[in-house]
Amino acid sequence: MTMSRLTHHISHQFDKELEDIRSKVLAMGGLVEEHIHKVLECFAKADFDEAEYVAVNDYKVNALEVEIDDDCTEILLRRQPAATDLRLVLSVSKTITDLERIGDEAEKIARLVLNLRGSGGISSYYMGMLSMGHHVRRMVRASLDAFARMDSEAAFKIAQEDREIDAETDAIMRYLITYMMEDPRSITRVLDAVLSVRAFERIGDHARNICENVIYLVEGKDVRHVALEQVEQELRRDVD
Amino acid sequence: MTMSRLTHHISHQFDKELEDIRSKVLAMGGLVEEHIHKVLECFAKADFDEAEYVAVNDYKVNALEVEIDDDCTEILLRRQPAATDLRLVLSVSKTITDLERIGDEAEKIARLVLNLRGSGGISSYYMGMLSMGHHVRRMVRASLDAFARMDSEAAFKIAQEDREIDAETDAIMRYLITYMMEDPRSITRVLDAVLSVRAFERIGDHARNICENVIYLVEGKDVRHVALEQVEQELRRDVD
Repeated sequence: MTMSRLTHHISHQFDKELEDIRSKVLAMGGLVEEHIHKVLECFAKADFDEAEYVAVNDYKVNALEVEIDDDCTEILLRRQPAATDLRLVLSVSKTITDLERIGDEAEKIARLVLNLRGSGGISSYYMGMLSMGHHVRRMVRASLDAFARMDSEAAFKIAQEDREIDAETDAIMRYLITYMMEDPRSITRVLDAVLSVRAFERIGDHARNICENVIYLVEGKDVRHVALEQVEQELRRDVD
Repeated sequence: MTMSRLTHHISHQFDKELEDIRSKVLAMGGLVEEHIHKVLECFAKADFDEAEYVAVNDYKVNALEVEIDDDCTEILLRRQPAATDLRLVLSVSKTITDLERIGDEAEKIARLVLNLRGSGGISSYYMGMLSMGHHVRRMVRASLDAFARMDSEAAFKIAQEDREIDAETDAIMRYLITYMMEDPRSITRVLDAVLSVRAFERIGDHARNICENVIYLVEGKDVRHVALEQVEQELRRDVD
């Protein structure tokens, strides 16, 4: 594994600025994960304040993206980094784009569920999303852990979970369709839930993107559009 | 306007490599626009081969993204560009991410409409999307034109169209909901249409992102999370 080699390289040669950027990315990731968590808390406890919080605080995620992007530009300008450092900066720049869009999706779900405020409670079709939502949230955290530890093997495993998320999405979609068929008057409200499931699914996609960035960063391989089987093969070749 | 100044700068100081990258971005944009067009042709003429073509050819868009991204990394490494050139390279890197995602959305719509193959025709709820789809397609082309001409004023105008797209989306959604309520047996198929409308809407969002990148490139202002009114004010100040 090239993991330990890169970690070694980071701790000795990357300067404080690069460490600062990595810390900021992790802070941004923590914020985004908190927002997903709050949305799910709203589902579980019918506490709309949690969703309201996410709806009005997404600007903080956006502000962090702009700040980190500026830091990256600044580093590229002043330090003119060579290969490995350059790869880190570029992968940071891509990772925060994904984090920002995860934040957007969380905000979207928050606004959708807020449509239920006034109706008195959280409908059962949101409850059915809790397990999948937490799976997605764990996936986001795990992808950031992999980023923090530069662990391409972990990143690869997490990227594969995206398939499970897709399967869970399909199951929830079938459930929601049945719901609509049985009670056509509920269609408008259930459609909000459909869009929420899709938003969770896209958060999973973004977590997968973050993992692929980690693999790129550690292995120097662009795996964005390569079948996972092929990546696995190449990673194994490195280990052998 | 800083437009002519930057165009001047490009033609005299940017070297062939940078011009090559810009041409590749435009080629990638052309490919993506062609895919959107083919999806709409499938809607209009019930010609499923057009959708099939998009579904199996998205890999070409992905391949271009990887190629251009490698070119950008290469340039950053070898040329260590200063401020303006660096900004161009970074904005190219962001633009192709958006183009790749537009390609993904077009592929998604193509696969959704292919579910109708065998049913013999295109349902009217896809027809209702034609006008909005073409609006989105024109927006993508216009955003690339603005990129090609480094025209921040045009980019600003196009970015504003995103609001019209949102309004058109809402209208189509209302229509689709009525459709589902009147014929609950159609729900599964109409849901595919709902997801298609949302995909078109997201293509509009990505075109807006591309425009914001052009504004950033020309004006050096990060407008990603700023209200459009405020951007307009700042652009006017520059003109005055």
